[in-house]
Amino acid sequence: MSKLRVAVIGAGGRIGSEAVRAVQAADDLELVATLGRGDRLETLTEAGAQVAVELTHPDAVMDNLEFCVRNGIHGVVGTTGWTDERLAQLRTWLDAAPGTGTLIAPNFSIGAVLTMRFAQQAARFFESVEVIELHHPNKADAPSGTATRTAQLIAAARQEAGSAPQPDATSTALEGARGADVDGVRVHSVRLRGLLAHQEVLLGGAGETLTLRHDSLHHSSFMPGILLGVRRVVTVPGLTFGLEHFLDLD
Amino acid sequence: MSKLRVAVIGAGGRIGSEAVRAVQAADDLELVATLGRGDRLETLTEAGAQVAVELTHPDAVMDNLEFCVRNGIHGVVGTTGWTDERLAQLRTWLDAAPGTGTLIAPNFSIGAVLTMRFAQQAARFFESVEVIELHHPNKADAPSGTATRTAQLIAAARQEAGSAPQPDATSTALEGARGADVDGVRVHSVRLRGLLAHQEVLLGGAGETLTLRHDSLHHSSFMPGILLGVRRVVTVPGLTFGLEHFLDLD
Amino acid sequence: MSKLRVAVIGAGGRIGSEAVRAVQAADDLELVATLGRGDRLETLTEAGAQVAVELTHPDAVMDNLEFCVRNGIHGVVGTTGWTDERLAQLRTWLDAAPGTGTLIAPNFSIGAVLTMRFAQQAARFFESVEVIELHHPNKADAPSGTATRTAQLIAAARQEAGSAPQPDATSTALEGARGADVDGVRVHSVRLRGLLAHQEVLLGGAGETLTLRHDSLHHSSFMPGILLGVRRVVTVPGLTFGLEHFLDLD
Amino acid sequence: MSKLRVAVIGAGGRIGSEAVRAVQAADDLELVATLGRGDRLETLTEAGAQVAVELTHPDAVMDNLEFCVRNGIHGVVGTTGWTDERLAQLRTWLDAAPGTGTLIAPNFSIGAVLTMRFAQQAARFFESVEVIELHHPNKADAPSGTATRTAQLIAAARQEAGSAPQPDATSTALEGARGADVDGVRVHSVRLRGLLAHQEVLLGGAGETLTLRHDSLHHSSFMPGILLGVRRVVTVPGLTFGLEHFLDLD
Repeated sequence: MSKLRVAVIGAGGRIGSEAVRAVQAADDLELVATLGRGDRLETLTEAGAQVAVELTHPDAVMDNLEFCVRNGIHGVVGTTGWTDERLAQLRTWLDAAPGTGTLIAPNFSIGAVLTMRFAQQAARFFESVEVIELHHPNKADAPSGTATRTAQLIAAARQEAGSAPQPDATSTALEGARGADVDGVRVHSVRLRGLLAHQEVLLGGAGETLTLRHDSLHHSSFMPGILLGVRRVVTVPGLTFGLEHFLDLD
Repeated sequence: MSKLRVAVIGAGGRIGSEAVRAVQAADDLELVATLGRGDRLETLTEAGAQVAVELTHPDAVMDNLEFCVRNGIHGVVGTTGWTDERLAQLRTWLDAAPGTGTLIAPNFSIGAVLTMRFAQQAARFFESVEVIELHHPNKADAPSGTATRTAQLIAAARQEAGSAPQPDATSTALEGARGADVDGVRVHSVRLRGLLAHQEVLLGGAGETLTLRHDSLHHSSFMPGILLGVRRVVTVPGLTFGLEHFLDLD
Repeated sequence: MSKLRVAVIGAGGRIGSEAVRAVQAADDLELVATLGRGDRLETLTEAGAQVAVELTHPDAVMDNLEFCVRNGIHGVVGTTGWTDERLAQLRTWLDAAPGTGTLIAPNFSIGAVLTMRFAQQAARFFESVEVIELHHPNKADAPSGTATRTAQLIAAARQEAGSAPQPDATSTALEGARGADVDGVRVHSVRLRGLLAHQEVLLGGAGETLTLRHDSLHHSSFMPGILLGVRRVVTVPGLTFGLEHFLDLD
Repeated sequence: MSKLRVAVIGAGGRIGSEAVRAVQAADDLELVATLGRGDRLETLTEAGAQVAVELTHPDAVMDNLEFCVRNGIHGVVGTTGWTDERLAQLRTWLDAAPGTGTLIAPNFSIGAVLTMRFAQQAARFFESVEVIELHHPNKADAPSGTATRTAQLIAAARQEAGSAPQPDATSTALEGARGADVDGVRVHSVRLRGLLAHQEVLLGGAGETLTLRHDSLHHSSFMPGILLGVRRVVTVPGLTFGLEHFLDLD
């Protein structure tokens, strides 16, 4: 069987260079081009790339994807900064290239994606749900983007199911003790030397609790998700937003 | 809106008496009959029961269900001891009562059911999966039935996905250190005073781990699942085996 | 060997009645008297009590202890509400009864006492320390008294050791995300149906973390500490404040 | 204040090179020499080293320490392979150099040392104690050396306290389910991709459990212990075995 021909755009970055190695190590993939800052996009077509892994900057991603889609190259995109306008523009390009697919994923960690998905599915079955995220102390924002997104998904699932507000008899509290309120879901941010990126979703009902915990120990955790995206995107024309749609969970 | 008319068979048992209280406390349900050992089944029809919660013994369950199905009473069954023969017999009765439904659930804890389901869904995305179950020290069997079942479901999911065998370089081991082998999935049983019933499924891939933990602290944890079964079974004719089919996870 | 003669004052309360059973079940102890509201204290001397377990109210405890100390009866006290004045008064009584001992313990759970003690000992070896306490949603205060006390002990240990302030680069935060600030130690309060009383102390340094977790699942957890207090107080004249002094940790 | 003059022997190794950087980064220490394989020991005296950090091989350590002790250079030793004969030899050398100290530490992770120490202190207060160690799947031995040592310390502490055997009603078990038996303490070994080195000690009594968990995420976790050893060894003449003796826990 012939191997799938893969290029990496943004190959010089921390995640990009890891992606280069991951593609090289995969038996069913062939690395045919690596592009850094300033390299010509025509390299992609000259090398016969079928899929491009795009890991650059919001400033560069639109030009890169326009070129790819126009030339029938599927895309697996980790670059951030997506607005409704940008997504609409990308869809227009994809409509004009019927067989071509693009996957954009805010998070390529399969563990993180599954945690969010399971939290969403479980949320309506429990009276109480809270989120604890734990990171190294150099992190600038609290809560983490992933924790905020997880809480929003939980809140939306509960609203859709008509769940009652969470029980909480707290009448005397030190400021901040009960965490941040994200759409009615409490989120707690721990900052501790020695940690990297960790998240717990705690769900509680009468007589039982369910805890979903994701520990991210190295950015190599993005590679299985990127490779899964590369293998699947060639069979899914159009725009897919979120790795969860490629996990066949439904 | 009229309330759903519910009976409890086996109302004198530990779970049964809890079920009686749970039905009474539910706004949309009306408790119309409670049967203990030796009570006449005709009480169910005389009371106009629409659903019977069956929490008795393998010796009694078949007679109870035959009566219920023949009289169009839906069943929510926690009694154990199901064989292929018994299930076939029950299906025959249900075939003759087209609008009637019966739910049999080996486990009514929603947390336990979700843990198994999520473990099954996640198993193929990680190189490694192990199960730790932790119980009070009076428990006679190791591993627990739930842990064995969970490991079997994980193993089946991995086989179906064509997963590679789990990595394990252990060459020198004390006997028992690596746990029990259930279809290639390692299961560890902890027995500790102070605990009740707890289970962890640990999944690990490059740079990340996902942990699913269920803590069961009281048998009241079965009630939300029993009530959910009561409300749903009236709309699902025929035999349903396993609460997961009523959780709309797909 | 003759058994130690023990009385329980406040025998009708939730903890008191459990203490009665625990004393009865201990091979080396003999329950010689149980006093409820309004019972005569003379019963203690008539029954020849050597140790009195005092589990009543702040309104009653001083009279009870004055009687005990005056009659050479050792005390194991769980009643709260101690002020400097009350402690000074009790010491005066004990000075006049040289062989008699009284143990006052704010917490008889050995697990909780050890958690605080270990947190205190470990605090100066790690750059970061935070506390998470998790309770049922009917709890009125946040953080819990135990968590606040734990954070204060940690802060004091770090100050004594000259520890640097904890690293925390948070520059953008939702209100409450980083928890409550107790003397420079962050404390997070989770409220979840299904939980009882749980606490985690997380300590982090370069490349490693240490977590101390205490799960309290039933108030029977106070009994081993009460029995240990009963057996030890007879050999320790004067006032002892805190069960930790009877645990021989030093 | 003048800085303490420190040399690193075995500076080319993984831990050694990290130690070089750690000494350089410390305000109160001056790195005066680094020795690799084949370098002359006289470099140490010529550079005026006061403390040598020894991180080599069992083949080289005795010659290195003989030189250091004879020249009044204190030692902080991470090299393994200590027998009673070797320790006796080292003591003879130290007896002839009254002001000189040597610290040998099987484990420089303060978190690991504290976990063992706390486990030892807590063991006699709980009916049940088990150990779970979790490592990456490339590890050859199960249980880990640290887990075996921890279980032995727990068993010894319980024997000294006259603790009863642990309760365990298991009558039907799959082979291996209950883990390895180390002096009566059950030890469970998990092997999972994505993990590094982790250990949990679970202690359980009536109504409560205490869990001590150590997560080692990077070998930089040895550096605080090595630096603490360097600063303390100059004030403690003779042989000290085990970092715990420098932690002032008593």
